[in-house]
Amino acid sequence: MVVVTLMDLGLVTFADLYSGITPEERMQNLLEEARLADELGLKVFAVGEHHRPDYLVSSPTTALAAIAATTKQIRLSSAVSVLSSDDPVRVFEQFAHVDLISGGRAEIMAGRGSFIESFALFGYDLRDYDELFAEKLELLLAVRDNERVTWHGKHRAPLENAVVWPRPVQQPLPVWVAVGGSPESVVRAATLGLPLALAIIGGETTRFRPFVDLYRQTWAASGHAGEPQVAINTHAFVAPSRQEADAAFAGPYVAVMNRIGRERGWPPSGKAEYEALASPAGPLALGSPEEVAAKIVSFHELFDPERYLAHIGIGAVSHRDVMRAIELFGTEVAPLVEREVSSQEARSAKAREPLAQFPGFDADDSLTSGAVTSRGNR
Amino acid sequence: MVVVTLMDLGLVTFADLYSGITPEERMQNLLEEARLADELGLKVFAVGEHHRPDYLVSSPTTALAAIAATTKQIRLSSAVSVLSSDDPVRVFEQFAHVDLISGGRAEIMAGRGSFIESFALFGYDLRDYDELFAEKLELLLAVRDNERVTWHGKHRAPLENAVVWPRPVQQPLPVWVAVGGSPESVVRAATLGLPLALAIIGGETTRFRPFVDLYRQTWAASGHAGEPQVAINTHAFVAPSRQEADAAFAGPYVAVMNRIGRERGWPPSGKAEYEALASPAGPLALGSPEEVAAKIVSFHELFDPERYLAHIGIGAVSHRDVMRAIELFGTEVAPLVEREVSSQEARSAKAREPLAQFPGFDADDSLTSGAVTSRGNR
Repeated sequence: MVVVTLMDLGLVTFADLYSGITPEERMQNLLEEARLADELGLKVFAVGEHHRPDYLVSSPTTALAAIAATTKQIRLSSAVSVLSSDDPVRVFEQFAHVDLISGGRAEIMAGRGSFIESFALFGYDLRDYDELFAEKLELLLAVRDNERVTWHGKHRAPLENAVVWPRPVQQPLPVWVAVGGSPESVVRAATLGLPLALAIIGGETTRFRPFVDLYRQTWAASGHAGEPQVAINTHAFVAPSRQEADAAFAGPYVAVMNRIGRERGWPPSGKAEYEALASPAGPLALGSPEEVAAKIVSFHELFDPERYLAHIGIGAVSHRDVMRAIELFGTEVAPLVEREVSSQEARSAKAREPLAQFPGFDADDSLTSGAVTSRGNR
Repeated sequence: MVVVTLMDLGLVTFADLYSGITPEERMQNLLEEARLADELGLKVFAVGEHHRPDYLVSSPTTALAAIAATTKQIRLSSAVSVLSSDDPVRVFEQFAHVDLISGGRAEIMAGRGSFIESFALFGYDLRDYDELFAEKLELLLAVRDNERVTWHGKHRAPLENAVVWPRPVQQPLPVWVAVGGSPESVVRAATLGLPLALAIIGGETTRFRPFVDLYRQTWAASGHAGEPQVAINTHAFVAPSRQEADAAFAGPYVAVMNRIGRERGWPPSGKAEYEALASPAGPLALGSPEEVAAKIVSFHELFDPERYLAHIGIGAVSHRDVMRAIELFGTEVAPLVEREVSSQEARSAKAREPLAQFPGFDADDSLTSGAVTSRGNR
């Protein structure tokens, strides 16, 4: 029987810095987190791009190259590459290196960026926020899909039969579009036939369902080959118990939410907001392995995504606590989620596909492998 | 007694591609070459930047990050970073990551670039060739030396109290200026107080001595703290014998020289040119370990450099032959060079420093450690 994962589980990190840790220690911790995730069989490790002293990594590809060289099977992504303020030719070149180093495990997660420091740093105007992303995504796909490219645009020098080199192992190198809740971004991803990563960090989770529906409907209407793919990314933290999770995570998490919130004009957050995020309706996957698995299964029921990425190490959560959370995520949460999702899939396959369609098969086998294969082909 | 290396030996590679090897294989070979160089105790491994299908690496920092994660002590450099067509802020950010990954082993070797593909690819005008380099080097040093930078220039958007992040382990991160034989570039490096890498790929080696003299004289006149540092880079190949070196190297090397030569309007090269390069007066360090060591010692006599980098893997030389050359370079050439250079240094120290200056020391000890310490402080 073919082993197919029903919903890939992985991690996102922004490699937060905090008082008492040096950038060098944080870099070594980042590499250690990625190695552990790889050893545990998690499917994706994604690193964010920021240009500010509260986060370590401004060049995800440079960090991912080091991770690529020290891991064996985990897929490596940015989360996100702030494409709007970067040069798609350089971005593609760098990811091609990561892909060659890792033997075909690189992915680009391209976004407009929720932090805006990079615009001033690289000379872009925030008034062009959306136009920049649209144009640069177009160019990124052009250099991904063609070794020689002729291209003319408004925000980057033209290419005239230019060679973009090296070429990656994967043809094509996956490009996900990361969105935070803009319908235009969702439609763009679907129209271009690109997989969608939806980050949900606040509000009730159900409010994001329409975006996923819009994505799948637009994809279907666009007549693309293949199937749409959706990733759900949320904040998460696992410990042996909810109490221990709170002890390690609540303080640093609320502090970060308030620090970012002040920059963005959000109202202050406290215990009430934290509890709301951690409640069954909220996006924060928090607590014991059972509690975190239950929350992820609820995402599965709501969005039926191909991938869930847990954003675990936030603010000043200690490296030891992050490592324990990753360990529990891989050894306890992942099997719980897999078991529950498999069983749901089997039930829904039973409802969809009467046994009569598989007269020659043993009932149990046909149910399971039928469901799994259908899901695996997405 | 303090152990100080009199002249650091290292390697340069452009990670050449050739018929019959995939980019993925070439990347894995590159990582293997770097690991071997590290294990052998060589001091520097430097990777070139090209944007064309005959070379693998367009982003040296991405390749160096993978090397950083899989080596322990070797210093990691570009050779060169084509700074003229890149953004110094991105370049510094990426090298800062490599420095953090490697625990403080990164170096930038910045050059104007001898290949010109990157200018059109990134929208620069070759008419600004020198002005671009001067301005971008100025910005690179500004972001290296200041965490917050205000800067205005002609070829890049201004920075207004901008944070450039992360900060590297080394303060400051070394920036070498790579030159090919332009007096203006030499004077610029000395005036800025930067170490100089001089690549000699053709002509008689003695013709380059005036550049090094000019560099040291300009440095002295500029009144910088510290001492000037010079690296000499030449093509090289080692095998058990000159005959075996020729068998592995001559064909691929002459083919590359002719391929590049056609682009640049050089006359065709053949056996006569090859023999001239390999002769005592030429820059090619070729042959048995003894022959290669003798050539490197002649560079030491001529230039008294702090560093010599051998550019070994050229064109379609096989991975096996390159690995054998690196092995011989580390195990046989390096000790031969070290022995001869130490003995020269001891002789010259004896001439410079009468024993009467060290009345309390044992004669032999004082000679050696006096010479070595004086050299090591450069």
